[in-house]
Amino acid sequence: MKRRPVRYVWIPVIIALLAVPAGFLYVDWSKSGAGDGLYSRKWSPESVFAYWNPKAFYTSVETVSGVFGGPQCVNCHQAVTPGIVRDWQASRHAQPADRGPVYCSACHGNNHENLHLPTPEVCGSCHAARHAEFEDEKRFGFPSHALAMERAQDAPHFVDKPKAEVSACLQCHSVATKCDSCHTRHRFSAAEARRPEACITCHSGPPHPDDETYFASAHGRIYLAEGDSWDWSRPLVKGNYRAPTCAYCHMSGGRHQVADKSMWKFGIKQINPLTSNNAVKRKQWVVLCSDCHAADWSRDRLAELDAERKQAWEKLYAAEAVLKGLRKDGLLSPAAGERPPYPNDWLDTLWPRARIGFFEGQASAFYNVSPIERDYFEMWYFDNLGAYKGAAHGDSGAVSQGHAAMDNALKAITHQAARLRSAGEEEQGETAASAELWRSGEYTDFNREHN
Amino acid sequence: MKRRPVRYVWIPVIIALLAVPAGFLYVDWSKSGAGDGLYSRKWSPESVFAYWNPKAFYTSVETVSGVFGGPQCVNCHQAVTPGIVRDWQASRHAQPADRGPVYCSACHGNNHENLHLPTPEVCGSCHAARHAEFEDEKRFGFPSHALAMERAQDAPHFVDKPKAEVSACLQCHSVATKCDSCHTRHRFSAAEARRPEACITCHSGPPHPDDETYFASAHGRIYLAEGDSWDWSRPLVKGNYRAPTCAYCHMSGGRHQVADKSMWKFGIKQINPLTSNNAVKRKQWVVLCSDCHAADWSRDRLAELDAERKQAWEKLYAAEAVLKGLRKDGLLSPAAGERPPYPNDWLDTLWPRARIGFFEGQASAFYNVSPIERDYFEMWYFDNLGAYKGAAHGDSGAVSQGHAAMDNALKAITHQAARLRSAGEEEQGETAASAELWRSGEYTDFNREHN
Amino acid sequence: MKRRPVRYVWIPVIIALLAVPAGFLYVDWSKSGAGDGLYSRKWSPESVFAYWNPKAFYTSVETVSGVFGGPQCVNCHQAVTPGIVRDWQASRHAQPADRGPVYCSACHGNNHENLHLPTPEVCGSCHAARHAEFEDEKRFGFPSHALAMERAQDAPHFVDKPKAEVSACLQCHSVATKCDSCHTRHRFSAAEARRPEACITCHSGPPHPDDETYFASAHGRIYLAEGDSWDWSRPLVKGNYRAPTCAYCHMSGGRHQVADKSMWKFGIKQINPLTSNNAVKRKQWVVLCSDCHAADWSRDRLAELDAERKQAWEKLYAAEAVLKGLRKDGLLSPAAGERPPYPNDWLDTLWPRARIGFFEGQASAFYNVSPIERDYFEMWYFDNLGAYKGAAHGDSGAVSQGHAAMDNALKAITHQAARLRSAGEEEQGETAASAELWRSGEYTDFNREHN
Repeated sequence: MKRRPVRYVWIPVIIALLAVPAGFLYVDWSKSGAGDGLYSRKWSPESVFAYWNPKAFYTSVETVSGVFGGPQCVNCHQAVTPGIVRDWQASRHAQPADRGPVYCSACHGNNHENLHLPTPEVCGSCHAARHAEFEDEKRFGFPSHALAMERAQDAPHFVDKPKAEVSACLQCHSVATKCDSCHTRHRFSAAEARRPEACITCHSGPPHPDDETYFASAHGRIYLAEGDSWDWSRPLVKGNYRAPTCAYCHMSGGRHQVADKSMWKFGIKQINPLTSNNAVKRKQWVVLCSDCHAADWSRDRLAELDAERKQAWEKLYAAEAVLKGLRKDGLLSPAAGERPPYPNDWLDTLWPRARIGFFEGQASAFYNVSPIERDYFEMWYFDNLGAYKGAAHGDSGAVSQGHAAMDNALKAITHQAARLRSAGEEEQGETAASAELWRSGEYTDFNREHN
Repeated sequence: MKRRPVRYVWIPVIIALLAVPAGFLYVDWSKSGAGDGLYSRKWSPESVFAYWNPKAFYTSVETVSGVFGGPQCVNCHQAVTPGIVRDWQASRHAQPADRGPVYCSACHGNNHENLHLPTPEVCGSCHAARHAEFEDEKRFGFPSHALAMERAQDAPHFVDKPKAEVSACLQCHSVATKCDSCHTRHRFSAAEARRPEACITCHSGPPHPDDETYFASAHGRIYLAEGDSWDWSRPLVKGNYRAPTCAYCHMSGGRHQVADKSMWKFGIKQINPLTSNNAVKRKQWVVLCSDCHAADWSRDRLAELDAERKQAWEKLYAAEAVLKGLRKDGLLSPAAGERPPYPNDWLDTLWPRARIGFFEGQASAFYNVSPIERDYFEMWYFDNLGAYKGAAHGDSGAVSQGHAAMDNALKAITHQAARLRSAGEEEQGETAASAELWRSGEYTDFNREHN
Repeated sequence: MKRRPVRYVWIPVIIALLAVPAGFLYVDWSKSGAGDGLYSRKWSPESVFAYWNPKAFYTSVETVSGVFGGPQCVNCHQAVTPGIVRDWQASRHAQPADRGPVYCSACHGNNHENLHLPTPEVCGSCHAARHAEFEDEKRFGFPSHALAMERAQDAPHFVDKPKAEVSACLQCHSVATKCDSCHTRHRFSAAEARRPEACITCHSGPPHPDDETYFASAHGRIYLAEGDSWDWSRPLVKGNYRAPTCAYCHMSGGRHQVADKSMWKFGIKQINPLTSNNAVKRKQWVVLCSDCHAADWSRDRLAELDAERKQAWEKLYAAEAVLKGLRKDGLLSPAAGERPPYPNDWLDTLWPRARIGFFEGQASAFYNVSPIERDYFEMWYFDNLGAYKGAAHGDSGAVSQGHAAMDNALKAITHQAARLRSAGEEEQGETAASAELWRSGEYTDFNREHN
């Protein structure tokens, strides 16, 4: 009798030994289609993608042929595109004293029929430490700059949504595939990348109003008033800047690793702020804030952020509970079975289920859903994340606005749920009509045909 | 038998010969009232309008009389309004070496009892080429700077809306009637007008977030970080600026004609991007973008904008179809016959009809309508135009937001239409009450009385 | 018979003689609890409050002890917090020629175990005139910088709302309790405080988009384009600045009294713009505007603002009338009696009544109310105040947006009221469910427990 548990132990082991390689094989097969990402057999990116994944897509201009040396590149492009030549001339790459000149050909190749755009690896061939720091972010999981492109493209909704819209997402997620997201070409200035403007091309607007919340903070206001007169050639260390910028706090000392102090995971899911892992990160924050503030004060601010997060999740879970009640009673319309399954998602086809909340995967399930589920998505993705960014960056206005918006969303969701519960016969028409729109409308047939 | 068609040909010819002059006579009569615009017999502008139409409205200050020479103006105003004197002193107008000084009196007259504010014609008396370029925009139809004031004032809703609100519109539309919208008085600096700030007093906020979308683009971020250190005295040509500004692209070389490359008509109506006319404009854009970018890349960006527009219109037409279905079934409430006709619109009085979509004239019909029609107006005018500006200026966030907002609006419109269809007896009360508000409320009786 | 009225006169006199001191005693008792504000027996602030009320809350750092002279402070802090030392060194406080150096100890004390943060009184011990001007604002009632903290903390909703949210309010309201809201520590530069950035840490976002409306005005655009090159060491008087800033108009000449020209009371209640008191203020505005503009023009702009306000209140009163009708007919749900009374508000416990509109106290009654009351609150507090700020600062876009938002809110409120009126039996479920949420949800039990 004692040996039976031991024998049973082999069952999951054998399943794992078969399932894990099978999973890898499946993902490998799935990514090897004509398109790109995990759904490469159903989705291919737009042509603009070439500039976001230079290695795989770039097709050279055919009007010029020949092999050219660096000075020749400069000579010709001074007439064709003088702006970028001036940028290069003003860069460290053009200074002989600074191990230069690093000519165009060093990064783009010298055969004009076979030029390429530089990937992070190309930049890393000289800037090895920075590239290693950047790659190191992958250890911390998503959200992460280094994983930004891959994880975005693997999202199921890429297949179902209009290409123009998901391309808009990829524009920023291309931070993973090229260095000129932060260091604008062809000056590639460190001084420039130390300023908030380097970050806010992407870090602005819902769902991540980093721009707005930083500029509305006391830090940001000082930067706005005086930043133009600061000496941006100085490193990002204690005493060099009157107020911190994005990079000062998130890349202190210029380290190209943004994720190592990250505790709250962008506000997208509830985290336990008191794990030993987070205790270490918390200490790192207190050390950083102590460049200017008292340590106790800094600890208090972090605790306040924890409190804000807790309150946000109370609101979000209250809304989730309302939705789960509706799901249980079959009141979501269109119900999971009435809308198209996710591509390649066998489980969703066999057992359609409404995903409610982040852990069930609602992050990817915000189209083809019932109106009330969409309302929750907005509450979670826009109102909640806006409040988080406000709390993290010291913009009390954004905290108030985000929480007021969550309160209103909770009010609307509760209101709407009560109406769905009390709806009599005459609402069935609405249900049917509304289901029809989402079942076969733009967001499924059309997009799948054109993706 | 063969000759009968020929005889009938005269019927439309005769009608046209009578109707066209009658139309002109009617418009002429209509504009000759005590007020202003096409509805001058029913609407007159507020006093602030004097500053927007200096020629017609200006009444001089009466506290000073006499005829003064330029140096006298300067002498006295140095004490009264020193700021504007300093601005003039810093301007080219004050430099003798530069064909100056052009004194106050050159633009304002010298009789203090009969001064005037300069119209574009006054500025054009020296700056003839610039003025001619500006006037040339009229050829391209609305939207256009040179037609901005006239077309705004001719809109029927000017009569029906509170004066404080339509005055807010005219503030920007006065770009047609005076040059200091872009060149702030009394410095009138070209360098200043080359900066985006010259444009964004007007080009910001819904429905035309040019400001927000430009500053959120990679171009705008570079400007924000570095623009203050650029040499703005340089002309707007290739190689002079690290990143383009509004004027660099839309007034390249400083040409005061903004409309000639305009293809998408502000996003307000669907256009065919492939006409031969648009092919010419497309080429002009590619030439311009090639100042810095590869030509192929530029072509791709324009194609992407076409795609975004197509998807936007699919959403808008889906919403229009829902509304037209309701109209057909008499479910719009208040219906067209239950709300006041447009002023001077005989056809609307005789045959009241709900205007749905741009081509039926909904642009002017967004008040005194049923709630669902207003929802469509918002979707079209704010969400759609925001997405367009984002796509045109390279702000991917605004594209996402605009399309998400359109999706939500489509959801709400479909939802609401289903409810209207399924509504039983108990909704009739709502219909009546809601109709009452719009039939005789603030937006009609009150405004017509006070306009 | 004639003497009876005389005898009755004593009744209110006696009541007043008893009630007024009783009221003072009650307020005194109420404020003497363990927490803070009028509800100090039910509410205590978060730890961050120490920095907003330095006198009452500050606890010194314990790691260093001893009494130090100014140079010693500087010496040590140059290593610990070099940034703030540099700021002090660049300040007038560090210049011997300027009656300095005013060392750290002058403001913070010299016993490191018993340091303190400077209150306005500490700053006022040298800057007596500025401090007196600041205190003088109290005469004008709320809104006022000097009363900002006290009045905020006395609001009943502080007890009922999550602490993280009301703390967000206090961050700005701490302008009453410390001078570094405008003069950032430790440079305390007048030049810095003359720039709009000094104000907009607080004066931005709903409900007071001063930031957005100023920057969108012609004044703001000129500042944005050129402000960095202006000489900010010059006083805020005629001729020194090309365009006005917040301080130029609201603190002209540098006077630390912002309220004396205030007529429209932030837009939160309707005022009579034609009182003799307001005639005086209007004249002050015209004098100020005449630094650059014609007096007639300035008068017209003020009249236009009056007109905008009048139209806003017509809309708001229309919405209030709808709500009062529902209240009369018992159609608000949850009704006043179904939601928790305000803390310490005996009258509200004995005679629960829905407060509708500013004068009934709705400003503090925006939670635990029925959805339609909340909609009115949003219309009044966000849409209306946004329109006001736009009208006051010359941002015509914000006027349009605010009025369009008010129109939509009025539409939604009318619509929803009609539905409530026509609702049959099947809506009772909704009423009950919705009431349940607000009766015992997060906004009452939870917060009261944790406050």
